[in-house]
Amino acid sequence: MAKESTKKPQKRYNTQPKKQGKNTKAKNTVKKENKTPIRIVPLGGLGEIGKNITLYEYKDDMLLVDCGMAFPDEETPGIDIVIPDFTYLIKNKDKIKGLVLTHGHEDHIGAIPYLLKNFNVDIYGTQLTLGLVQGKLKEHKLLDSAKLNVVKPGDEITLGNFKVEFIHVNHSIPDAVGLAIKTPAGTIVQTGDFKIDTTPIDDRVIDLTRFAEIGRKGVLALLSDSTNAERPGYTMSERIVGESFSNLFKKAGKNRIIIATFSSNIHRIQQIIDAAVNSGRKVAVSGRSMLNVVNVASELGYLNVPENVLIDIELIKRYGPEQLVIITTGSQGEPLSALHRMAFSDHRNVEIMPDDMIIISATPIPGNEKLVGKVINELMKRGANVVYEKMYDVHVSGHACQEELKLLMSLVKPKYFIPVHGEQKHLYKHAQLASTMGIKKENILITSIGNVVELTKNSIKTVDTVPAGRVLVDGLGVGDVGSIVLRDRKHLAEDGIIIVAITMDSVTGEIVSGPDVVSRGFVYVKESEELMSEVTTVAEDTLERLYMQNVRDWNVIKNRVRDAVSKYLYEQTRRSPMVLPIIMEI
Amino acid sequence: MAKESTKKPQKRYNTQPKKQGKNTKAKNTVKKENKTPIRIVPLGGLGEIGKNITLYEYKDDMLLVDCGMAFPDEETPGIDIVIPDFTYLIKNKDKIKGLVLTHGHEDHIGAIPYLLKNFNVDIYGTQLTLGLVQGKLKEHKLLDSAKLNVVKPGDEITLGNFKVEFIHVNHSIPDAVGLAIKTPAGTIVQTGDFKIDTTPIDDRVIDLTRFAEIGRKGVLALLSDSTNAERPGYTMSERIVGESFSNLFKKAGKNRIIIATFSSNIHRIQQIIDAAVNSGRKVAVSGRSMLNVVNVASELGYLNVPENVLIDIELIKRYGPEQLVIITTGSQGEPLSALHRMAFSDHRNVEIMPDDMIIISATPIPGNEKLVGKVINELMKRGANVVYEKMYDVHVSGHACQEELKLLMSLVKPKYFIPVHGEQKHLYKHAQLASTMGIKKENILITSIGNVVELTKNSIKTVDTVPAGRVLVDGLGVGDVGSIVLRDRKHLAEDGIIIVAITMDSVTGEIVSGPDVVSRGFVYVKESEELMSEVTTVAEDTLERLYMQNVRDWNVIKNRVRDAVSKYLYEQTRRSPMVLPIIMEI
Repeated sequence: MAKESTKKPQKRYNTQPKKQGKNTKAKNTVKKENKTPIRIVPLGGLGEIGKNITLYEYKDDMLLVDCGMAFPDEETPGIDIVIPDFTYLIKNKDKIKGLVLTHGHEDHIGAIPYLLKNFNVDIYGTQLTLGLVQGKLKEHKLLDSAKLNVVKPGDEITLGNFKVEFIHVNHSIPDAVGLAIKTPAGTIVQTGDFKIDTTPIDDRVIDLTRFAEIGRKGVLALLSDSTNAERPGYTMSERIVGESFSNLFKKAGKNRIIIATFSSNIHRIQQIIDAAVNSGRKVAVSGRSMLNVVNVASELGYLNVPENVLIDIELIKRYGPEQLVIITTGSQGEPLSALHRMAFSDHRNVEIMPDDMIIISATPIPGNEKLVGKVINELMKRGANVVYEKMYDVHVSGHACQEELKLLMSLVKPKYFIPVHGEQKHLYKHAQLASTMGIKKENILITSIGNVVELTKNSIKTVDTVPAGRVLVDGLGVGDVGSIVLRDRKHLAEDGIIIVAITMDSVTGEIVSGPDVVSRGFVYVKESEELMSEVTTVAEDTLERLYMQNVRDWNVIKNRVRDAVSKYLYEQTRRSPMVLPIIMEI
Repeated sequence: MAKESTKKPQKRYNTQPKKQGKNTKAKNTVKKENKTPIRIVPLGGLGEIGKNITLYEYKDDMLLVDCGMAFPDEETPGIDIVIPDFTYLIKNKDKIKGLVLTHGHEDHIGAIPYLLKNFNVDIYGTQLTLGLVQGKLKEHKLLDSAKLNVVKPGDEITLGNFKVEFIHVNHSIPDAVGLAIKTPAGTIVQTGDFKIDTTPIDDRVIDLTRFAEIGRKGVLALLSDSTNAERPGYTMSERIVGESFSNLFKKAGKNRIIIATFSSNIHRIQQIIDAAVNSGRKVAVSGRSMLNVVNVASELGYLNVPENVLIDIELIKRYGPEQLVIITTGSQGEPLSALHRMAFSDHRNVEIMPDDMIIISATPIPGNEKLVGKVINELMKRGANVVYEKMYDVHVSGHACQEELKLLMSLVKPKYFIPVHGEQKHLYKHAQLASTMGIKKENILITSIGNVVELTKNSIKTVDTVPAGRVLVDGLGVGDVGSIVLRDRKHLAEDGIIIVAITMDSVTGEIVSGPDVVSRGFVYVKESEELMSEVTTVAEDTLERLYMQNVRDWNVIKNRVRDAVSKYLYEQTRRSPMVLPIIMEI
């Protein structure tokens, strides 16, 4: 039980305890029980950016589950991707026995190349997952250095003190698995991302039987997907989307059909292809990631495409609108995606025609609502018939809703529960669900990235923290954009920059050229010549005064010029651009 | 019928026609019919930023309806507010007979001070609406120059050739009205923002009877609120929120209650106060706009606060948690709002305590989802019990859903229909609804900001365009931030800036100081000294080469240095910061 909640302990979930100096207490507990604890360290996947990576430690062995990336948001302008902080892993690389993957989504595999640039590790995953990893490694020219080991649901592998069993689950990408991680101290079940689909497209229902068997043998702790913990009921079956497609294809009549969805949703793509075949249409694919996934999935047999159905996007002009379905990226409104380019008449092969039926088979991820809305508005302006969001069930989630989460919990019957994969609000909701299922509140632990959770047969607690958090990847640089650079970028974005350049005689301290004032992102200079000339005067006056006062220290001069110009600009404009004095000497 | 839709004219709505040179055709039509048309010019309120302002022209008279502002988005970094382009109004200011207001929301009144800075105009609105306008004018020191005329629902005013009747409607602010605008050419009904609430808090149901009477007399055109045109069914009554509050107040038990909502939602605030009184709690108010609205609404009698219920936020420490309700701004997660400051422990008077019940009585406006989520996560981390979004009906919309829109349409029975107040996708949906109600497709016109719609008894068409769009207000500047500045801000936000400063002998063309390289928002310089010194070398080499080639033109030198540095940086880092060479001369 967390120490700080002394008032009403029965009402509060277990969270981080107060800092405990050198953590001597935890060690004492361990000694008393005479048991080696399992240590669980989430290095991502709990709402903070830098996604889905969990470390398990038992004695001197370490096991990694997933290694994902996140996309940047408004807090990280200009950043390409965000990866987890590997500091703790690099320090302990010799202990790491393997990296086990639950499925092939970017937030679970996207950071693997960056991990492998630090050290090598054996990787275990199902066929499709590793197929997608392989594509990544090829891009990063790391194919030779990685050992990829294909596993199947039902397999059990031994990695040091860990035995890991793979259990088939349903998700919005095929070949997803949950994990039963067995140690001498007990078994831990980590679901990975999952839903319960009793009529999945590949007819392979989540292996609830196996979860039940493992549950009956006794599970020490469950780490379960919290994404949809706020949603009551059940997530609908992927199959319902196929029925909607079939209806919409009829409705489309003689018009062209364009469908945007996530490239990794191979079952969705399969259903589009099936509907196309049924209505005698050809399928063209647009968007780099979509092409890539369709290729990998077809090669590995996860996508069943009859001959002469797929056509090159370059050749669509040879077909009438009633003969075509175009599958495209851009369901999140991403500015560089194929659908965005179609909407803004910037696509090389596809020009939106009035009466095109465009189906956005996805829900906007929080933060993308406006982007998606803009694309829809643009498509409608061109006369297209756009089907989106809750219209016609053209999308279902890949994550379990409350009833499914409770069902899985009832089968696994864990003693301890750790909600993972979600923001704080999702974790709290999931904890609440667990509590209604009869798991004691003090056995439910809401943790944070970098916390070390120590688990024995009779205790769960946070004992320590390790370095963790997000590392920003910008161009070729990994981690060289930090908080100062981001703060500057935000300042520049808000108010722009004013540069005051001065050349000074290093002997006499006299100004020999300037001050020259240049601005970017502040006001349009041609319309503000007067203001700029006033700024020059303010800088000149300041320099003159400092010269008379015999001030020669550059830092002082820079600071005074910056302050004087900032103050003047704020008074005149109520804006605070970055003011950057540059002093050169001759 | 729009000219470009030749293929299937029966299926397409009326949109803008092809540009028609000097619009002689329209004039001919008018002559033939021997009727003066009404011209309607939306200068905002159709999804594009710069909100809700509609101009009506009849002969030499002009009438303005509403004058709203919008808040900036990710396309307009650093901007304070966005207002409509007044160019066309300023040009015609002598024709403008009055400005009529539908209600007191910012997107309908927020730009009035900026309009009044250009020219004076008589303003007509209901008491609360003008009370809120008055506060604005006071802030802008414009109180003396404006003539505010209070009207009541049922009143009819004459403004030149226009007679305007005010009709009571329900909305998320009291005292909202729709308008019947009567001209010799026919009557136009503009709903303003509305919903149909048969059990409103002030017991004043929307005056459907009057809409019906006007409809029976014959309405030429209806301009109706499209905000919720995508939502089926009815918007729930505001009263349901009161029931939820009552239940939640019981659930809160001995804990403190904090409720965030829109400051302008006076009926919501009334219901919070009622629930507080019923449970014997005091009410404290936090947030500048909330305080302001509570004051104005109490003074004007729109808010009924029993004595000794309101307490100063500074005094909350004198009361136990079970005695307190705090009403606060910040329901949209705005970073400077009171709730945000509470969540991040930055509020002067309120520190979140475990078990505080916090109710977010609002839905995130598209684009604010992540901001709101962050605040919720933070509040939960502090142990608060947060009620938000679809939990417990703590919010209802202020806009009519599909069934209400259809009902109003059925009463008004317009010949022509123009959906307004919404993005393209909302307008199209609303047009679709009108079509299912039996309004002919060619009588439905989807227009854009700046389009001039000409309306006679027998025709509706777009005949012209006038200058329109968004004007950005940044600090004291109105309109001085344009597309170049915004483009620069976005570039700076993405990649930062590298400045290359050089001092040159103006006679010999020799470099006498520099190149000095300074960067901001690019990479953290202390960790990238090598890169910066390489950049200096690249600049030096380029300058040396240009000197040897006898190039003395500053523009050429600047361009060459910029290109060389940009190319080098892209090769080394795959990033493209803004490169700004500054040449000084001695």
